[in-house]
Amino acid sequence: MFVTPLVVGFGDCDPAGIVFYPNFFRWFDLSAHEMWRHGGYDIERVRREDGLIAGPLIDVGGTFRAPALPGDAIEVHSWVSKWTTRTFRIAHHVFRGEKLLVEGYELRVFVRADPDDPATLHSVRIPDDFRSRFA
Amino acid sequence: MFVTPLVVGFGDCDPAGIVFYPNFFRWFDLSAHEMWRHGGYDIERVRREDGLIAGPLIDVGGTFRAPALPGDAIEVHSWVSKWTTRTFRIAHHVFRGEKLLVEGYELRVFVRADPDDPATLHSVRIPDDFRSRFA
Amino acid sequence: MFVTPLVVGFGDCDPAGIVFYPNFFRWFDLSAHEMWRHGGYDIERVRREDGLIAGPLIDVGGTFRAPALPGDAIEVHSWVSKWTTRTFRIAHHVFRGEKLLVEGYELRVFVRADPDDPATLHSVRIPDDFRSRFA
Amino acid sequence: MFVTPLVVGFGDCDPAGIVFYPNFFRWFDLSAHEMWRHGGYDIERVRREDGLIAGPLIDVGGTFRAPALPGDAIEVHSWVSKWTTRTFRIAHHVFRGEKLLVEGYELRVFVRADPDDPATLHSVRIPDDFRSRFA
Repeated sequence: MFVTPLVVGFGDCDPAGIVFYPNFFRWFDLSAHEMWRHGGYDIERVRREDGLIAGPLIDVGGTFRAPALPGDAIEVHSWVSKWTTRTFRIAHHVFRGEKLLVEGYELRVFVRADPDDPATLHSVRIPDDFRSRFA
Repeated sequence: MFVTPLVVGFGDCDPAGIVFYPNFFRWFDLSAHEMWRHGGYDIERVRREDGLIAGPLIDVGGTFRAPALPGDAIEVHSWVSKWTTRTFRIAHHVFRGEKLLVEGYELRVFVRADPDDPATLHSVRIPDDFRSRFA
Repeated sequence: MFVTPLVVGFGDCDPAGIVFYPNFFRWFDLSAHEMWRHGGYDIERVRREDGLIAGPLIDVGGTFRAPALPGDAIEVHSWVSKWTTRTFRIAHHVFRGEKLLVEGYELRVFVRADPDDPATLHSVRIPDDFRSRFA
Repeated sequence: MFVTPLVVGFGDCDPAGIVFYPNFFRWFDLSAHEMWRHGGYDIERVRREDGLIAGPLIDVGGTFRAPALPGDAIEVHSWVSKWTTRTFRIAHHVFRGEKLLVEGYELRVFVRADPDDPATLHSVRIPDDFRSRFA
């Protein structure tokens, strides 16, 4: 499990005084990229050398149990919770101390551009190197 | 059904050149609020006069079918797709022309602060006035 | 002068109930890109065909005269207010009705990548085609 | 001087692959609030007990010297660089290692609502307690 610590900014919160919820997805995405980077998987190098694009999202969700407030120190706990041949699901749990605030996930794929039509992307098998780092 | 037209900003897109996905949730929330406002439901007045808070989110999700690009004219189509006594589900479909790009929803509630402990919020029945405007 | 109409979202505002100020810069950038697009200047085509990158920012500023609130219909009025050989300054004024809320500017340049070192960017003369469209 | 360390998210960057500039202002605001909080100045308590609102912005600016990229570890260095009776100017310098990327400032005030008309705000003298903590 990978942990991304964050401080909730005043500007991350809305007129109700609590985190404006799309920011939690911003933090999910940040934590996914931090997990890859700390795991030594360089998506930029892989894109350049193998033409593989890591990570387009196909499905995402979140359940909100308790609000977060300006100045709160929170943590996003992220891990790959499910693998299929062509997809992986990252679970993200947001905590303030012991308290679970948000439970979410991102379902992502790997894609490659069609050699005959670069605007068309085809999903591919999850690379073994990626799977072995985060399984 | 309520329609919120938008233009995708350059800055709404990420280094992959497509919309950074949390922005779709920002647009879902915007479209929900625009629907309420155009329907004549003033959440600020209701909060002030009745102490009712419209709309905390308890669950949200999105499925991404095709990307949106800088400069794209898109529309968010929003409607209440399901009612229970204490919750309502808003469906949001994002289109570019006829093409459906994103299919999502927000599950929301109405809450009221506990008179003995203002930090504790209790969910309440959906007000009839709200239900009749958006049913 | 180019006008970008916008509605202030609930989520664009902070716990003080007014627009979180970085959003005004997001709207400045949006209005600059909309001005270019509506003026028929396709920065993506220019980048692809001529290797010219339109618009890196070198300086920006804003003066805040009055706040904007959730649901406000505002307009960003944008125009090139000053040209030099290698820079152009876009003025952005944000209005709610007749009332001027924010007065700002962006100082931008055109750059080209060094043929021997693509990571190094050199500023170039403003293209005549760009200047003639927005002067 | 106060230091706020940050990691640049993939989603903080635009299709040019560099930080979308309004995010630097988001980080300026975050660093200002973090400086206050770590200096023991609780703007929420002051607002509740004294009716004083810390910090509306009246002017802001930034000069961009070099871009920041996804995954960059950056630091915002923040300090009050100028005091007048009713305003304070916070300088914000953004570094990646030794390299200065952005130089900016925020000019802020303290305000109090008019007792006869809460929508009207009057600027007040900077409180001594605030000044002594951050001078």
